[in-house]
Amino acid sequence: MPAPPAPESPEALALRVRNSFDRQGMMRTLRASLEHIERGKVIVRVPFDVAFTQQDGFFHAGITSTLADTAGGYAGYTMFAPDASVLTVEFKVNLLRPATGPYLEAVGQVVKSGRTLTITQAEVFAHDRKRMLVALCQQTLIQVRPGQAA
Amino acid sequence: MPAPPAPESPEALALRVRNSFDRQGMMRTLRASLEHIERGKVIVRVPFDVAFTQQDGFFHAGITSTLADTAGGYAGYTMFAPDASVLTVEFKVNLLRPATGPYLEAVGQVVKSGRTLTITQAEVFAHDRKRMLVALCQQTLIQVRPGQAA
Amino acid sequence: MPAPPAPESPEALALRVRNSFDRQGMMRTLRASLEHIERGKVIVRVPFDVAFTQQDGFFHAGITSTLADTAGGYAGYTMFAPDASVLTVEFKVNLLRPATGPYLEAVGQVVKSGRTLTITQAEVFAHDRKRMLVALCQQTLIQVRPGQAA
Amino acid sequence: MPAPPAPESPEALALRVRNSFDRQGMMRTLRASLEHIERGKVIVRVPFDVAFTQQDGFFHAGITSTLADTAGGYAGYTMFAPDASVLTVEFKVNLLRPATGPYLEAVGQVVKSGRTLTITQAEVFAHDRKRMLVALCQQTLIQVRPGQAA
Repeated sequence: MPAPPAPESPEALALRVRNSFDRQGMMRTLRASLEHIERGKVIVRVPFDVAFTQQDGFFHAGITSTLADTAGGYAGYTMFAPDASVLTVEFKVNLLRPATGPYLEAVGQVVKSGRTLTITQAEVFAHDRKRMLVALCQQTLIQVRPGQAA
Repeated sequence: MPAPPAPESPEALALRVRNSFDRQGMMRTLRASLEHIERGKVIVRVPFDVAFTQQDGFFHAGITSTLADTAGGYAGYTMFAPDASVLTVEFKVNLLRPATGPYLEAVGQVVKSGRTLTITQAEVFAHDRKRMLVALCQQTLIQVRPGQAA
Repeated sequence: MPAPPAPESPEALALRVRNSFDRQGMMRTLRASLEHIERGKVIVRVPFDVAFTQQDGFFHAGITSTLADTAGGYAGYTMFAPDASVLTVEFKVNLLRPATGPYLEAVGQVVKSGRTLTITQAEVFAHDRKRMLVALCQQTLIQVRPGQAA
Repeated sequence: MPAPPAPESPEALALRVRNSFDRQGMMRTLRASLEHIERGKVIVRVPFDVAFTQQDGFFHAGITSTLADTAGGYAGYTMFAPDASVLTVEFKVNLLRPATGPYLEAVGQVVKSGRTLTITQAEVFAHDRKRMLVALCQQTLIQVRPGQAA
């Protein structure tokens, strides 16, 4: 079993996460921003746009889910070896109430980090007058090392 | 218990689904198209665009999931009363392999349609040389009648 | 919309939960016990028994899941009208590590309680030397009122 | 990457599955039987017993889920290397209707088999007058080789 990766500095960690995030065309399309990065926890935000709505003008469930998947995925990624990449194996999201207001924010946190699989949880909040939990997500990630098939 | 809704004509059904679909800003953003509509089954397609990618250039898991949620959601909606609307309660998606190729197609089908809750399943296919299953989704929907709180 | 149910006394609530729990043949089979009951939170325990194992002598994933489902289900039930019954719509459980030790304990808590649907979360702990999180569950419940079809 | 395991004879495969199944104390407790074993598909049955009920006399959701997990798990196991063992990473089950009748039968099938992870689906049927789908399950398994940590 390889030695665990040497701990990165917070700056190196944040840089590694931002480098990956910035390569996601989807995050640009959503004008998503990384609001917080620490080992085991990442926060991502998406502004409201009519381009992100479902038929009644709320945030589309797909946006809420994409945001949950992304926050959970990068939370897991903070625990990975610096040369590893991350793939979502699966996630499950409960949509608790219609989401509206100026922006959505997803807080992703690691529940268990393993050598191969990492389990995360993400909460998504809307901000229509007050901060409201609109979705709860449970996710499995796989760490893929260079030269390794998933 | 109210009588079940009188069966709609295929044309009326397709029109009802398209009217709802066309009001989703998110579907325009994804340039998504309705490829098939029948009672209990809906197919939705999204073309590849770098705007929909994750960090390695594949379709973002959020796109795949949004597409699965949408195909399942409209499959359920085909069974609803004409004046009802549809909300996703929850969904769970397994991402089977990285998705690439010119377009993704999601096939949503109703597993069980109830008065309140409807359960669907969606398969998402990529088309990189051949048609490949890239995601499998299981979803719960709620039928909301006018004047009724979810 | 009917008025919300008058708040029960803690004693009446505990009695209502125990009455339902005691009617579950499955809970007797598992020698399960209700360790804690409050509005929105229920704790259930199952002792180790070789009768509850999988092929390597750990608690069977089915036991862990049954316990999570039960703790979440009764947590939701504490918020229901006294004459309502509870059905599980769906649940999703991540099994974080093999579970062993003298007993499993599941802590179920309500995330969102609605008129029709209630969302809960349950954590399952094993006690092999120390308390360890072995499973995490996210669940949807439906409240069924007398004379009402699910 | 190691060569794929040489194909087992149907008899060797059935024996390998039965050997593992017979070591599960839980399966004895449920008086569960293996009804069918082939590469990628396993069927498991549990008879009705008041010891397996919830508060209204139906099969407990935990039994239905345990059965789905077991059928899916052994379906995946049929594709594994003969010296590997199987662990459930996660599963998600929708309970479609209350389950009653003389027995439950779960049909587990492999959706995608990978070197590390395998995805399965299971359908559970009750037999109250006619065969009825009562649950649908989507599951992730991990193949653990000897000497390898999960």
